Amino acid sequence: MDVLKPNQLTQEGDLVQLVSPTNKVYLFRLISGEQLHTHRGVVNFDDLIQIPWGSQVFSHQGSPFYIIQPSLSDILRETKRSTQILYPKDIGFILITMGIGPGSLVLEAGTGSGALTTALAWAVGPQGHIYSYEVRAEMQNLARKNLDKLGLLDRVTLKLRDIAEGFDEEGIDALFLDLPDPYEYMPQVRRALKSGGAFGSILPTTNQVSRLLNAFHPNGFGFIDVCEIMLRYYKANPDRLRPADRMVAHTGYLIFARSILPAHDASQ
Amino acid sequence: MDVLKPNQLTQEGDLVQLVSPTNKVYLFRLISGEQLHTHRGVVNFDDLIQIPWGSQVFSHQGSPFYIIQPSLSDILRETKRSTQILYPKDIGFILITMGIGPGSLVLEAGTGSGALTTALAWAVGPQGHIYSYEVRAEMQNLARKNLDKLGLLDRVTLKLRDIAEGFDEEGIDALFLDLPDPYEYMPQVRRALKSGGAFGSILPTTNQVSRLLNAFHPNGFGFIDVCEIMLRYYKANPDRLRPADRMVAHTGYLIFARSILPAHDASQ
Amino acid sequence: MDVLKPNQLTQEGDLVQLVSPTNKVYLFRLISGEQLHTHRGVVNFDDLIQIPWGSQVFSHQGSPFYIIQPSLSDILRETKRSTQILYPKDIGFILITMGIGPGSLVLEAGTGSGALTTALAWAVGPQGHIYSYEVRAEMQNLARKNLDKLGLLDRVTLKLRDIAEGFDEEGIDALFLDLPDPYEYMPQVRRALKSGGAFGSILPTTNQVSRLLNAFHPNGFGFIDVCEIMLRYYKANPDRLRPADRMVAHTGYLIFARSILPAHDASQ
Amino acid sequence: MDVLKPNQLTQEGDLVQLVSPTNKVYLFRLISGEQLHTHRGVVNFDDLIQIPWGSQVFSHQGSPFYIIQPSLSDILRETKRSTQILYPKDIGFILITMGIGPGSLVLEAGTGSGALTTALAWAVGPQGHIYSYEVRAEMQNLARKNLDKLGLLDRVTLKLRDIAEGFDEEGIDALFLDLPDPYEYMPQVRRALKSGGAFGSILPTTNQVSRLLNAFHPNGFGFIDVCEIMLRYYKANPDRLRPADRMVAHTGYLIFARSILPAHDASQ
Repeated sequence: MDVLKPNQLTQEGDLVQLVSPTNKVYLFRLISGEQLHTHRGVVNFDDLIQIPWGSQVFSHQGSPFYIIQPSLSDILRETKRSTQILYPKDIGFILITMGIGPGSLVLEAGTGSGALTTALAWAVGPQGHIYSYEVRAEMQNLARKNLDKLGLLDRVTLKLRDIAEGFDEEGIDALFLDLPDPYEYMPQVRRALKSGGAFGSILPTTNQVSRLLNAFHPNGFGFIDVCEIMLRYYKANPDRLRPADRMVAHTGYLIFARSILPAHDASQ
Repeated sequence: MDVLKPNQLTQEGDLVQLVSPTNKVYLFRLISGEQLHTHRGVVNFDDLIQIPWGSQVFSHQGSPFYIIQPSLSDILRETKRSTQILYPKDIGFILITMGIGPGSLVLEAGTGSGALTTALAWAVGPQGHIYSYEVRAEMQNLARKNLDKLGLLDRVTLKLRDIAEGFDEEGIDALFLDLPDPYEYMPQVRRALKSGGAFGSILPTTNQVSRLLNAFHPNGFGFIDVCEIMLRYYKANPDRLRPADRMVAHTGYLIFARSILPAHDASQ
Repeated sequence: MDVLKPNQLTQEGDLVQLVSPTNKVYLFRLISGEQLHTHRGVVNFDDLIQIPWGSQVFSHQGSPFYIIQPSLSDILRETKRSTQILYPKDIGFILITMGIGPGSLVLEAGTGSGALTTALAWAVGPQGHIYSYEVRAEMQNLARKNLDKLGLLDRVTLKLRDIAEGFDEEGIDALFLDLPDPYEYMPQVRRALKSGGAFGSILPTTNQVSRLLNAFHPNGFGFIDVCEIMLRYYKANPDRLRPADRMVAHTGYLIFARSILPAHDASQ
Repeated sequence: MDVLKPNQLTQEGDLVQLVSPTNKVYLFRLISGEQLHTHRGVVNFDDLIQIPWGSQVFSHQGSPFYIIQPSLSDILRETKRSTQILYPKDIGFILITMGIGPGSLVLEAGTGSGALTTALAWAVGPQGHIYSYEVRAEMQNLARKNLDKLGLLDRVTLKLRDIAEGFDEEGIDALFLDLPDPYEYMPQVRRALKSGGAFGSILPTTNQVSRLLNAFHPNGFGFIDVCEIMLRYYKANPDRLRPADRMVAHTGYLIFARSILPAHDASQ
């Protein structure tokens, strides 16, 4: 897959992004003979194949673009969505904190438009696997298309199911609930997760966080962390270095826990 | 490697962490017949082998501990160091933004105590590789021990070298400089990095950021981002939910750029 | 002045704000016989006189408004301006840190549209006084109009002068420079400020902060503080309590210092 | 009062702060013939009278100190306390937002050690007045001593009373509750506050904020704001400008509202 095996030169079939002088981004797959029509003119894909990544290229009107290999951040930003998606600032911290990396077996619900699914599938590599549950068929279809476009679909098992009925899997390394009411499903989570496994969730309101915290102890979870990540960009002018004027103030509270076995349970 | 292939039960040779009631953490490898001596009593490793992860165990004095599989965050926090190390909040964002994942070829300088090296080696999986440069032999030795202890040494090539002399590698996907003066080495970085490749650095002061920003344009870098990440923990009490009293206010400014090929260069 | 002597009932001549259902704010003085024309209908000022503050009133079309006595924050937000103005979050901290309160003698440059001048004149009360320097006549005129409208002009002496020529005053309690290059005027500041007096400035870029810091020691300033204030609003829904989606990320760095007399100077 | 009428030279009876080379602060009143004993030697007050503010002075051992006129921030920091006190970052914003300045009539509960009372009494000047309620006699006594020491006691009426019984005052401009359960007293607040008057509170937990928000509508309050203020200090080194390593992450959520009169009430 081209995300993982980059070359010096662009190849037929590569996923690319073309960036305009005003930072408008076009994300597409390089298919010989096809074209991109922009309001700055037409770009022929044949001119974009077998050139160095990072090159400046031109539309038929002479407008300049850069051709860049998309990073995971770039891909997530451009993912077709119908719901709020997770931000790279949160996803990076989730992966590190939950120990999600090459070879991990990860369970997720709900799939939504597949943005987190994409990040998880990317991070676990060819040796890992993602099980992703969703109850809305149209969302699952959108996620399937997004994952397929990125060549990540073979690392993901998509399930159409209300998770109140439980998960099919057991012994999962890490389980993430991107749902408004994760506290309703903690017994199901406990059964799917391996002992000592990592649970995570993201919730927009403090009321939801309180409800989730109340559900941890009765269901055998410990090592609880609640946090939030703030990302502040700077204007990259060396002689006038300063933060940008505005920033995202809130995406959600991140909540992490581990499945534990208190001794009175272990002795049963 | 046990970090990547977790089982339900602890195994001889696993890397484990034992956590006391006051959240003191002991990170070690499970060797049959060995012992951990704490001020709360002795823990026999034989009692810790072939039990479920997340179990509560007891010292000979009856003090309770939990046995937990360390995540990358846990490992980084306990890494033996002699210098400031990168924080998980920054590392997660660096990986996502620079597209460092399974299969990536990454170059890093300096190695330091190997904390970022560990994170990179973990993230690129068995198909990726890390080249890490360091000029101080004693730091390289410390990093080697830390990586060996974690079973990640085979994914890393450690080089003892002043990077002013340049890097041996070319076509690198992503290159991170964790040095106080990255702006001195941008020609060397440009040659090692593949066209379109991702460059990153972290710097504590605004003066250093300005100097690095000045070095980008003359050396063929574009798509520059400067940002900082603030992480705020909450007290996980559902009835008294509130942020912790104090937080880390600053680790460093993150700077990212891409190697680019403006048309006038490409035409040469 | 009505800002300082509020009554239970609105009075002819009071400064009022009318707030629409969509939080559009109209700030004006209550003049008998006049009208406010809004796209939600006409409001007769005669209907707004001698009614309780905080009352709901209606336009001729039946649209509801609240009539509220403006606080300093409200006034500053609605001040006619032609430049960037200081935010309440910064002004409050400036007043407290520089000890600016009833009776203070304060010097300010540049006047700009008079927003900080307004806050200073309000805070020092009838026993204090503000000296405000500006080099652009049209800005001074705008400030004069704004101060006059608020009934604060008698507490302020406006001067049209390039401060490179120095200030007329000596023994000033607190001196604030809201200029892009405060570091050019530190000898002048030192002469105007009483010994031990408080200096303050706000600067948008880190480069300017460094330049100002360099100017302190040679000009006899100590007790230096640099800080920034971030204000985050929440959505005031008790069942869905959460921060607003976006926030102001940066207004400026606040810099404070005190005029000091090292012994080697004192002995001269 | 010396806080308000500073002179160029220190005077017998002035409130002063002496600052050591390691920034240890001594706050006291200058009484002729008295001494300060520090571990860096003895300082005779007679040597501190009639010298310029900001001067460097020496102990009998030759250790240098600076003599500085305390600002409100300095005073609050050194106030003897037995409870958590409000921070300058919050107080400044409270004053500005609630329109508390020269001439304001302000009601506060509870008094606590008198830190906010001090700030309010300072801000309203000789024309304003503070009514401060407290239920614990020993706290009221501590506050009385603190206010008396600062010469602000004549601007404050201290009342020993459970505010569940209501307030004696009516037509108050601004009312601040620094209590853990302000939501229990909103009918009493409504009666004391003038129509359109400003209410404020500070609460450490999100649960308390939700409870207070629920109490606003039934008791006739509108124009509700919830926010938090973060203050980040920088190391004031011009060549190595950077934030301090750690910061206060949370003091409390600030909540503001206005007493309003919806039309159906007004028509009664």
